[in-house]
Amino acid sequence: MSISRKVKAASSQSSMIRRMFEEGAILKKKFGADKVYDFSLGNPNVEPPDEFKRELISLAGKNIPLKHGYTPNAGYYETRQAVAAKIGKTTGLKMSADHIIMSCGAGGALNVILKALLDPGDEVIVLQPFFVEYPFYIDNSGGIVKYASTKSDFSPDIEAIDRAITGKTKAVIINSPNNPTGKVYSAVNIADIALLLTEKGKKLNKTIYLVSDEPYSEIVYDNVTVPSILKAYKNSIIAYSYSKTLSLPGERIGYIAVNPTVEECNDLINALILCTRILGYVNAPSLMQRIIAGLQDVKVDVDVYQRKRDLLCSGLAAAGYKFEKPEGAFYLFPQTPIPDDVEFIRVLLKRNILAVPGSGFNCPGYFRIAYCVDDSTIINSLDGFAKAIDECRQP
Amino acid sequence: MSISRKVKAASSQSSMIRRMFEEGAILKKKFGADKVYDFSLGNPNVEPPDEFKRELISLAGKNIPLKHGYTPNAGYYETRQAVAAKIGKTTGLKMSADHIIMSCGAGGALNVILKALLDPGDEVIVLQPFFVEYPFYIDNSGGIVKYASTKSDFSPDIEAIDRAITGKTKAVIINSPNNPTGKVYSAVNIADIALLLTEKGKKLNKTIYLVSDEPYSEIVYDNVTVPSILKAYKNSIIAYSYSKTLSLPGERIGYIAVNPTVEECNDLINALILCTRILGYVNAPSLMQRIIAGLQDVKVDVDVYQRKRDLLCSGLAAAGYKFEKPEGAFYLFPQTPIPDDVEFIRVLLKRNILAVPGSGFNCPGYFRIAYCVDDSTIINSLDGFAKAIDECRQP
Repeated sequence: MSISRKVKAASSQSSMIRRMFEEGAILKKKFGADKVYDFSLGNPNVEPPDEFKRELISLAGKNIPLKHGYTPNAGYYETRQAVAAKIGKTTGLKMSADHIIMSCGAGGALNVILKALLDPGDEVIVLQPFFVEYPFYIDNSGGIVKYASTKSDFSPDIEAIDRAITGKTKAVIINSPNNPTGKVYSAVNIADIALLLTEKGKKLNKTIYLVSDEPYSEIVYDNVTVPSILKAYKNSIIAYSYSKTLSLPGERIGYIAVNPTVEECNDLINALILCTRILGYVNAPSLMQRIIAGLQDVKVDVDVYQRKRDLLCSGLAAAGYKFEKPEGAFYLFPQTPIPDDVEFIRVLLKRNILAVPGSGFNCPGYFRIAYCVDDSTIINSLDGFAKAIDECRQP
Repeated sequence: MSISRKVKAASSQSSMIRRMFEEGAILKKKFGADKVYDFSLGNPNVEPPDEFKRELISLAGKNIPLKHGYTPNAGYYETRQAVAAKIGKTTGLKMSADHIIMSCGAGGALNVILKALLDPGDEVIVLQPFFVEYPFYIDNSGGIVKYASTKSDFSPDIEAIDRAITGKTKAVIINSPNNPTGKVYSAVNIADIALLLTEKGKKLNKTIYLVSDEPYSEIVYDNVTVPSILKAYKNSIIAYSYSKTLSLPGERIGYIAVNPTVEECNDLINALILCTRILGYVNAPSLMQRIIAGLQDVKVDVDVYQRKRDLLCSGLAAAGYKFEKPEGAFYLFPQTPIPDDVEFIRVLLKRNILAVPGSGFNCPGYFRIAYCVDDSTIINSLDGFAKAIDECRQP
C-alpha cells in the first residue's frame, strides 16, 4: 500500500453513497435523465439573481488593474466591510471588517475555524443528524467527533449536548436551517445552548465555542427568522456561504464572522487568517469577493423553493410518509417506512428515484430528499414515492 | 488559552516577516507608496492576457444554465480533458481527463496531494531553500518535514536527498522553476532524482512519490525549458496553478496531474477526489474552470519579466551583489553582504527597500527579491541597494 491508509479507509466507507450515485448514473443512461428523479444532491437549481449577473458582466468588462491578483489572506477590506455592515444592521452588534475573514465557501470556513481552534485530541460536538462532511472536517485538524442526538422534531436536545461535553470539548457545531432536516433552531433553542455552554465553560474553566454553519440562513419559509447566535452567545463564530443565497456553490465564496465579544478576539482572528493561508486556501476567490461586496441584500427567489417544498410535502403526506415540515433549506427528511433506510433507498431506486439514506447523516430510519429540482421532477416522482411506500406496507 | 496552541505558536513564529510587512506599511504611509520599493510579495504585476479577458466577458454574458453550480469534485470533464490534451501534447504521454483533478491553485493541489498520500508520521523531503508554506502543508496532513540542502547553484544535491530518505519517506517535493531561487532543474537533475527514488523505493520496498510544484513552469527565460517529471519518473504527481501563467493568483485555479503510470493509479485518483471534498475545497472555482479550459496555450508576456530580471541583475551585479542568475519564476536570491540576513533586511529597510530574509526559506545568508514589480520600482531602488551593500562593507 502506498497512498494514505487513512484516506483509503475513508474512501471505501463513503462508497455506499457513491455506489448509489453510480447506480443512478446507470439508470439515467438506461431510461433518460428526465425519467430519473434525482433528489440526491443539494445543488441549487435556481439561477443566480439578475443583480449578480449584472455585477459579473460589469466587473468582467472593467479594467481594474490586476483585479485577479492575490487579495489579503483575510480578503478585500471593502468586501469585509460590506459583510460587517450587513451583520451589524441585522444584529445591532458592532462588527467591523476585522471580524470578517472571507472564505472558500462554508466548507472552507469550517476547516479554517476548526484548524484555528483545535489541538489534536480536542473534542467537537455535532448534533445528529448532521452534514456528512463534519466528521472529516473535524478529523482534518486532529479533533475527535462527539455526537449528541436531537429531539424527535430535530430541535436541539440540551441534555444530550450536556452529556456530550467533557473537559476536552472545544466546540459545538450547529447548522440551522439544517441539512438534512430543514429544521430552524428557535431563539429559545439558541438561548438554551448558550446558557449550557456558558455554565459548562465556567465549571470546566474553559471556552467552549459555538460554531454556526449557516449556508441556508437566507433560505427560510413562512416568515420564519433565523435567530442570531452572535447576539445569544459571546464565544460564537459563523461559517457562511453565498452558495445558496445567490445560487453559486461552485464559485466557493463565503465568510467567517467572529463575534466581536469573543475571548482573545485578536488571537482568534490572527489564527483564522493564518489558517486560511496555511491550509492552502490562501484567499477566497478574488473576482467573487468583489462581486458579492455589493450584493449583501440580494438573494434568490425563496418562494420558488417554498413552492417545491409544498408540492413535495403535500404529495408525500398524501402517500402516507411521516416527516417534519421543513422551515428552511431545501431538504426533507422523512422516516423510512421500513427500519432499514439503505434497503428503502433500493426500493426507491426501483422507481427511478434517487435519495440519500439517513445512515449517511448518522441517522438511520430516515432518508433525505433534496428538493432543489424542477417542479416537474417532484410532480412526476410522486407516483413512484407512493408505490414505494405501498410496496413496503405489503405483508 | 482557548484557541489552538499549535496554531498560536505558528502564528508567533511567522511574526518576523509580518513585522517587516508592518514596518513596510508604515514606510509607505510616511513616504508615499511610490517612494517605497516593495519586493516582498510574489504577486504578478502583469495583467492577464487579452484572451482571458475576452473569455471572461463572453462567459459572463452567456446564459449557461447554472454555470455557477457545484462541479464534480474532480472538476468539469471538458476542462480536465483540455488540460490532459495539453500535457499529452507536450509530453507524448497518454493522459486522459481521469488523470486530472482541478484544484484551488497549487496551494490547494499540494494540500490535497499530501492528504491523499500521508499517514501521520510519514516523512516528506523538501529541498532547501523552499517555499515557506511547505512545512505547514506537510504538517496539515500529519507529515514530518525532512530537509535536503541543494548545491551552491541551487540545483538538487542527490546525495543530500539520499541521506534524507528513510523507511518513513513517502514523498519528495520539488519546485522548478524555484521560489525563491529562480533555478530551473535540468533534465539531468530530474533523471538523477528519478533514479535515486526508483532505487531507494526498490531497496525499501515502498513507493516514494515525486511531487512537483510547478506554478512557474511557463515563466522561463533565455529559451530554457522545464523538463517533464511525468516522463522521467513513474510515481510522479504535478501541482499546477494558472496564477502566474495567466496572472490570476487570487482566483485560485490550478490542477493536479497524476502520472498515468503511477502505482495504484485508480486508488490515488479516488483519494485525491475524496480529499478535494473533505478538505473543504469541494471543487475548483466553477467559472474559472470554464474559462481556462480554452486557454491552454495562452500565457502572459514572459519577456516583460525577463526584462525586469535583466534590469535587476545588471544593477545588483554592478553594485557588487553575488547571485545565481534566475532562469525562471520572478525571484532573485542573492547572498546578503553580511551573514545575518535579517539584519541586512533592516539595512535595506532604511533605504525604503522591502525584501524577505533567506531565513524565511530555511536559507540564512540570502535574501529574496520578488521582481514582479514595475520597472521604475527596480530602477529607482538600485541606488538604495548600492548604498546598502556599501554600508555593510564599511569597517
